[in-house]
Formats: sequence, C-alpha cells, structure tokens
Amino acid sequence: MSIIKYAAVIGGGVIGAGWVSRLIENGVDVAIYDPAEDAMEKVEAVLKNSRYAYGKLISAPRAKEGSISFKDSIAAAVPGAELIIESVPERLDIKQSVYAEIEQSADTDAIIASSTSGIMPSDLQAKMSNPERLLVAHPFNPVYLLPLVELVGGKSTSMDTINRAREIYTSVGMHPLHVKKEIEAFIADRLLEAIWRESLWLVKDGIATTQDVDDAVRFGFGLRYAQMGVFDTYRVAGGEAGMRHFMAQFGPCLKWPWTRLMDVPEFTDELVDLIAGQSDEQSGHMTIREMERIRDDNLIAILHGLKGNDWGAGQALGKYESHLLEAANDD
Amino acid sequence: MSIIKYAAVIGGGVIGAGWVSRLIENGVDVAIYDPAEDAMEKVEAVLKNSRYAYGKLISAPRAKEGSISFKDSIAAAVPGAELIIESVPERLDIKQSVYAEIEQSADTDAIIASSTSGIMPSDLQAKMSNPERLLVAHPFNPVYLLPLVELVGGKSTSMDTINRAREIYTSVGMHPLHVKKEIEAFIADRLLEAIWRESLWLVKDGIATTQDVDDAVRFGFGLRYAQMGVFDTYRVAGGEAGMRHFMAQFGPCLKWPWTRLMDVPEFTDELVDLIAGQSDEQSGHMTIREMERIRDDNLIAILHGLKGNDWGAGQALGKYESHLLEAANDD
Repeated sequence: MSIIKYAAVIGGGVIGAGWVSRLIENGVDVAIYDPAEDAMEKVEAVLKNSRYAYGKLISAPRAKEGSISFKDSIAAAVPGAELIIESVPERLDIKQSVYAEIEQSADTDAIIASSTSGIMPSDLQAKMSNPERLLVAHPFNPVYLLPLVELVGGKSTSMDTINRAREIYTSVGMHPLHVKKEIEAFIADRLLEAIWRESLWLVKDGIATTQDVDDAVRFGFGLRYAQMGVFDTYRVAGGEAGMRHFMAQFGPCLKWPWTRLMDVPEFTDELVDLIAGQSDEQSGHMTIREMERIRDDNLIAILHGLKGNDWGAGQALGKYESHLLEAANDD
Repeated sequence: MSIIKYAAVIGGGVIGAGWVSRLIENGVDVAIYDPAEDAMEKVEAVLKNSRYAYGKLISAPRAKEGSISFKDSIAAAVPGAELIIESVPERLDIKQSVYAEIEQSADTDAIIASSTSGIMPSDLQAKMSNPERLLVAHPFNPVYLLPLVELVGGKSTSMDTINRAREIYTSVGMHPLHVKKEIEAFIADRLLEAIWRESLWLVKDGIATTQDVDDAVRFGFGLRYAQMGVFDTYRVAGGEAGMRHFMAQFGPCLKWPWTRLMDVPEFTDELVDLIAGQSDEQSGHMTIREMERIRDDNLIAILHGLKGNDWGAGQALGKYESHLLEAANDD
C-alpha cells in the first residue's frame, strides 16, 4: 500500500505502463501523458498482464486499485502529483525539455524520477530550476513483477529526495538500491551490457546460436542469479576458505582468453540480420503477448516459490504481503 | 533413472561430489578416487545436501540409490565403468596424466568426460591413445540441482561419444547443451567471466560494494535469467516489432561507455583484499554450509515453482519426473 496518493507518469511505453501498473495496484491514482495515438491501448495491454500477475502472486488482501486518467499535456498531468515519473525515449534533449515542461506546472515538493537506463542524472538535471528534486529511479521489465529499482542522484540531487524516493518505492513492494556514485548505465545494466557484448560475439563468431546462449543461461547460472548474485555465489563455490580462496583459484583466468571483451563487436546490418534471423527461428512461433505470458507465469512461479524463504526477492515479497495484511487490518 | 549402471568419478571436490550425488540419485553405482585424506568426509557433506534437496524437490518415485565405493587408485576405480568423470584441478598437465592412467585400466568403450570449466578438449585429448572417447561435460554448481551440462568435443572426439553422452546426461535429469565449436570457457563461463570482470571494476572503482552488485542481480535481471536467456528476454522487450527493433534501439549503446570491458582489472592483492573484505561484511555471519542450504532451498523453491510450467528448467524437471514415474510403473 503506497505512502503516496497521486502520481503522474510521462510516457506510456512498456516501462511507463509498468510503473502505472505497480502504482495503481498499490492504490495510487495515476495521471498519464503520452502523445501517441495508441497510448491508451498499449497501457491497457500491460495492465491486463499486471492484473493477471498480481492476482496469481499476491495472497494478502490487496489495496483498492488506484484510478487512471489520460491527460492531453504534461501541464494537465503533473499538478498535485507527489511523484512524477519520466519514461520517455532515451535522448537527453527530449528528457530535458520534458523536465522544463514539468517544472512549469509541478508542485515544488514533487519528486521527479527518470526511468533512464543509462544517462547520468547530473546531465538530466543540468538545466532544471530545482534540480535537487530529480533522481534516476531505474526499474526492470516487467516493472510490475521485478522488485529492483536503482536510485541514482546527480550532483544537485538532495539526500531528502533519495530518502523520500526510497520510502515511496518500498511502499509499492520494490527493492530500492541506492547507487552511491554516479556512473553511466549504473550497476545492473553494466553487467547486462557485458553479457550482451559477449553474447553478440558468440553468435557472430558462430560458436553459439541465440538459442544456445539462452539455454546456457536459463538451465544454469540464471537459476543461481535469481537468488544469489555474483559474489555470494562464488563465496559459496570457494567453500569454507571463502572468497579469498575462490579469487586465488580464478584470478589468473582474467589473463586467459576467456572473453572477447577487449574489443566491441561492430554493429553491422549483417550482425542484426544474423541475430534477428536466429531469434525468429528460436521464438518466432510465439507472439510477444504469448511470450510475456510465459515470462510472467515463470516469474510468478519463481517469486511464489521463494516467498516462503527468508532471503532476497522472496523475503521482500513476504514483507510486502505483511504490510498489505496490516493495512487491511487497520481498515 | 540412468541408462548406465556403473561410473567412476576421479576427484571428489565440490564438482566431483556433485556428480556422485546426481549419479547415485539415479541408481548408478559409483567408484570414487581422490587422493585427499578427507575426501570421504567432503563427499559425504555434499551428499547430505543433495539427499535433502532431492527429497524436497522430486515428487515422483525415485530410483533406488546407487552405491558408493572409495578406491585407492585410478586403476582400481575405472575398470567396468561406462562413464569416467574427471574432476581434478584445472591444470592441463595434471589432467593429461590422469587420462594416461585412466586409459591403462578403462574399458575401451568407456566415455571419458572432463568437468573442466575452460580448457579446450583438443588439448585435453592430445596425448591419449583413444582420444575419440574424450569430451568435456561441463556442469554447474550445485551439480545435483542445476540441469545444464555443456558438451564439447575436441578435434578427435567422435559423434558417437557426443551422442552417447547426451543420452546419459539426459537420463540423469540434465539438459545437455552441445557446444558445436570448440572455444576456451565454452558458452556459459564466457558470459559469467564478462559479468565477473565488470563486477570487479564496479567494486574496484568504488561504484558498488559486493552486496550492491549481488542485489542488483538477484532482485532484478537474475529473476529473468532463471527462465529466459539473453535474447528471448530482449525479444520480448522489443515488443511486437521484436529483435530487430530492440537491436536498432540498443545497438548504438555498444559505442557508449557502458562498461569497462576494453581492459581487464589487474589482479592485485589490494583488489583481493577489497573484495574479500566486503564479502566478509556481506556474508561472513553465515557459514558456507548455511549459505549452501539457503541457496539450495531457494533453487528447490524456484525449480519446484517452475515445475508446473511447460518451459525451460520446469519443463525439463517435469519430463524427468515423468520418466521416473514410468520407470517405477515398469517395475
């Protein structure tokens, strides 16, 4: 159950609509602005997924769903909003002009949160009149199911903004991770970009198909990563001697030709054709809607299974359900 | 239920013992050779974990557990074995001398499978008299729970060996992935090495602690990777326009400073101290045994949750249980 009542979401793509889902699920009324003609239709498609997902995942009494209103301008959407989420395309100039419009009509104490995957918050806030209230709050698709949100402040962001954001995102069932030093792509996307580059090499060099890469992930280390990360996994692998032993054993590999990281694959039409063609062969028999349902059913099953365990996403979900239960009992 | 009756495992570390667990669970009698004095104790510790895990995970009637016998030499362990698994330290000279000993006593039609994480099978088999029967069968820790095994043949490996290995590993509930071109570190470990290097940079540069990196993984994309891999995840993210759209959108990022992949962190004592210190702070309050139980409980919950879904590891597990059920009904 959210600690805020009213939010605005600027941009109704997959990420923006995912935010709308998570907010209304937690009782927040949401105003949406997106200039696209089919915005309402696209948001409704995501909401259909999220309502199904929450229905299957959450066993505690859920909040009364917040309302949704589509507005025809930023000026109409942001007044009164305690949280303003920007999920527009990844171009600095577009984002900066959106902030200029937001600042003209927003309440002075509203938090402005960018969903950017990689642009530095100091650049985002560079032209703002009240830059202290802007931060990056970077979520992961599907936003209505994955708990992680990376919070990143820029040079002018106040600690008040970070702290308030942390409270808000926690109250809608998320796990805020404060990235303490500003850096392009933050933490998770840097790791994802590393995997992505190596994956492109493996396909380009004919070592693996897209299907091989996906299978290597989801039948193996992906299952580990769903509950322990990079370092704890290796700590366990090191045995009682721990991390130091693991590093002594695998440190020398850094000098071995175990990746093609030293350079970056060239982004040619041939590479796009190769990847897109293999991906079609692998999954072209399913629509994206069908794949989303498969993904969500799997995520629900994983999160549901983990719920009983006092660890990671399962623990976070357990706490969230306790809060929902308390809120219901308070009524 | 395994299609083989008797196997030998050379090396009883975490990986070797994991193989023993998976084999005896599926009714295979196993001979173990490990020169270490505490080998039996270490294998028993892993078996304690695996018996607990299978008991919680598998609801079909399980096979009668195979027997275990510790032998005092390779010569005593390998005669009669249909599958000989080598899980000794990652040094080519050690492995080659183990194969020489194996070949002196093994049945001529035995398959010899190396658990190496990265050495090329052509190098492993270079000095063998019957190199066609050697392949890499690279598993993932914990071997008794994670289904992936990468099968890699060298220049002299026969397709018969690959095909036979595929049948054997499938029969013990695994998902064999045939890596068709030989390459150092195969597929999964190349991706893991890419993440590992970027993780080291993030900690070294003070952007993130080991805990931050782990949280960024397990509360976010790790949950996705437990069921879809790199390419299918992005295919869905691209929406109905699919992979081509996703690549058009994110291709340019390859040129952005989103990773520090261009060079490799130097493996200094300072770096080891930093990582080991942070890891102690993060998880030093737990023993490795406790962490293994947490990991296994989480993996069991994830796999158990996925079992009902016709996809990935859940599907593989469902098939495995059907086979167990059929075998039980045949008795």
